[in-house]
Amino acid sequence: MNRDGHVETLRWNGREIEMIDQRLLPARKEYVACNSARSVADAIRAMVVRGAPAIGVAAAYGIALEAVRLSEEIPSRFTEKMNDGFTVLAASRPTAVNLFWALDRMKKRWSENSGRPLADLASILLQEAHDIRAEDIRINRKMGQYGATLLKDGDRVLTHCNAGALATAGHGTALGIFRSAVESGKRISVYADETRPFLQGARLTAWEMVQENIPVTLITDNMSGYLMSRGEIDAVVVGTDRVAANGDVANKIGTYMVAVLAKRHNIPFYVACPLSTIDLSLATGNGIPIEERPAEEVKGFRNCHWAPEGVAIRNPAFDVTPAELVTALITEKGIVDNKTLTDGDLVGFVKKHRS
Amino acid sequence: MNRDGHVETLRWNGREIEMIDQRLLPARKEYVACNSARSVADAIRAMVVRGAPAIGVAAAYGIALEAVRLSEEIPSRFTEKMNDGFTVLAASRPTAVNLFWALDRMKKRWSENSGRPLADLASILLQEAHDIRAEDIRINRKMGQYGATLLKDGDRVLTHCNAGALATAGHGTALGIFRSAVESGKRISVYADETRPFLQGARLTAWEMVQENIPVTLITDNMSGYLMSRGEIDAVVVGTDRVAANGDVANKIGTYMVAVLAKRHNIPFYVACPLSTIDLSLATGNGIPIEERPAEEVKGFRNCHWAPEGVAIRNPAFDVTPAELVTALITEKGIVDNKTLTDGDLVGFVKKHRS
Repeated sequence: MNRDGHVETLRWNGREIEMIDQRLLPARKEYVACNSARSVADAIRAMVVRGAPAIGVAAAYGIALEAVRLSEEIPSRFTEKMNDGFTVLAASRPTAVNLFWALDRMKKRWSENSGRPLADLASILLQEAHDIRAEDIRINRKMGQYGATLLKDGDRVLTHCNAGALATAGHGTALGIFRSAVESGKRISVYADETRPFLQGARLTAWEMVQENIPVTLITDNMSGYLMSRGEIDAVVVGTDRVAANGDVANKIGTYMVAVLAKRHNIPFYVACPLSTIDLSLATGNGIPIEERPAEEVKGFRNCHWAPEGVAIRNPAFDVTPAELVTALITEKGIVDNKTLTDGDLVGFVKKHRS
Repeated sequence: MNRDGHVETLRWNGREIEMIDQRLLPARKEYVACNSARSVADAIRAMVVRGAPAIGVAAAYGIALEAVRLSEEIPSRFTEKMNDGFTVLAASRPTAVNLFWALDRMKKRWSENSGRPLADLASILLQEAHDIRAEDIRINRKMGQYGATLLKDGDRVLTHCNAGALATAGHGTALGIFRSAVESGKRISVYADETRPFLQGARLTAWEMVQENIPVTLITDNMSGYLMSRGEIDAVVVGTDRVAANGDVANKIGTYMVAVLAKRHNIPFYVACPLSTIDLSLATGNGIPIEERPAEEVKGFRNCHWAPEGVAIRNPAFDVTPAELVTALITEKGIVDNKTLTDGDLVGFVKKHRS
């Protein structure tokens, strides 16, 4: 447990990065230790670690630990094997852009220091991973402060999937906003939809909120429209895996349906979005690759199977919510409202604030 | 198995009504035998039998079997105990109006024959239950014929929950339309969303379609919006538990979200609706009682639990889709289009056709 009183998503043990196994929560709290690019890539693909910012931090450690390993074991093939490490990590999951953002940052650090002795370079890359992790927590707290200003005392807020401490290095993006609102003295209550098939809402979001005594109610994914129609939801706040230059938002499958229902009921739909999640290389959300996950996930959960033999399965893991449905993006540099998004001014905002 | 090659939802064994236990499908095919009003009410409440038309048929047998039992065991308290039987059945589930429709029909038959010897009365009521069951299958086949005319060869149709043979005495309402379309030579493929928390879509609809070699793809409840946005759904067909006089449709929780997304994407949204499901006593859907089911259902499925300790739960079992979102009601007496519904002419249609 870290000082905030919840388990740490990623922790450094002095020689390995340890990740809480999110496939087992909340029933079991077990850490998986990784010490190479491949072991981190396997953990990302298997969803031991998930959530766009957490995947980015994990990938940075994967590169740093690969550098440490290669500098000690096979320095003669360092460059070749490092490039293999970047390749295997880049192939682990396609949708969250933070993965590629972190890899680019590590590659830049490497090239800036390519002349140094390998041991020194490895230390520099490891420090960069530590910095990315620490920055992520600071960024989440900034988003939390901005986002908290959008929530009113007594608000009943819906979130989808888990954009919490468990999706980041700590505090969380969407759940970070709830935490910051509560820290600022606002009483809010949270609705978490369970988020089939991986059940991040039920297993992770509901659990995080219970841990911190923030009132939370669990529903299935098909109930939020009913609650909205009854006036029982005041705002929606979600995270995102990639935002295109026009403000289209990719996030966990089902986010689009929640956004369409929120629009119908004039409920604000907010997206917590660190600048590292905005991909200016894509003009619109149509360009965002949507991962199709294994059919097994939809047939049941863990060892509980309920689908009949012989049925076909679709399992798209993400969808795209058009900018028109987004009331505001909440970033660590401030709030980007719907008009700015639909006027096409997100690019200018990002270029102005990105260091 | 009946002649259509699928299991019978309700079957008469000569002295009891046997119901396939829908809590166990598709893994196990076990029948529960009932011989009294209370045993049928318990089976309805526990969802051994579910689906508005099937609940109506079951309730009719509950009354008939109560009459047989009382006429043999305690004829002296027949009237008092029969009224208790009506009361316990009416309290079993609140939303599906077919339950109350069937009870009213049995009560009417009773009063018409109250002068007869109890043994004769019991036989008359048992025959009435047999008639209601046989009529339900005929009605479903008529709806199937009308509904099939609305589907095109090659259509990819989405359905929610299970409005199939298992929700009726046979053939099904929404799935009956798919069966009739296939019988008429149209090639259609079905998307079934799993329908948490009871998973009727995954366990019952997908299984019924696989049994009959109708191509079916299983998705989770949060995926249909994505498929619609990609142009992969041509029509939506669902059943209903109660339709108000203005055409508002109560159906399984999540139906409203599917209807809103279908409207956004200009996809026709059809409701298979026997006349017995239309409740002219309610002006709008606001008057339809929405059952809140036990929290346990949302915490997991069967003996698989994934919700954290200490989380609150909501479990509304139905929602209401406003008539404006309904492209057409498909009844056994013909198709009621959206204009007729929104012009308020459903009442006239029903009064004209109800015998």
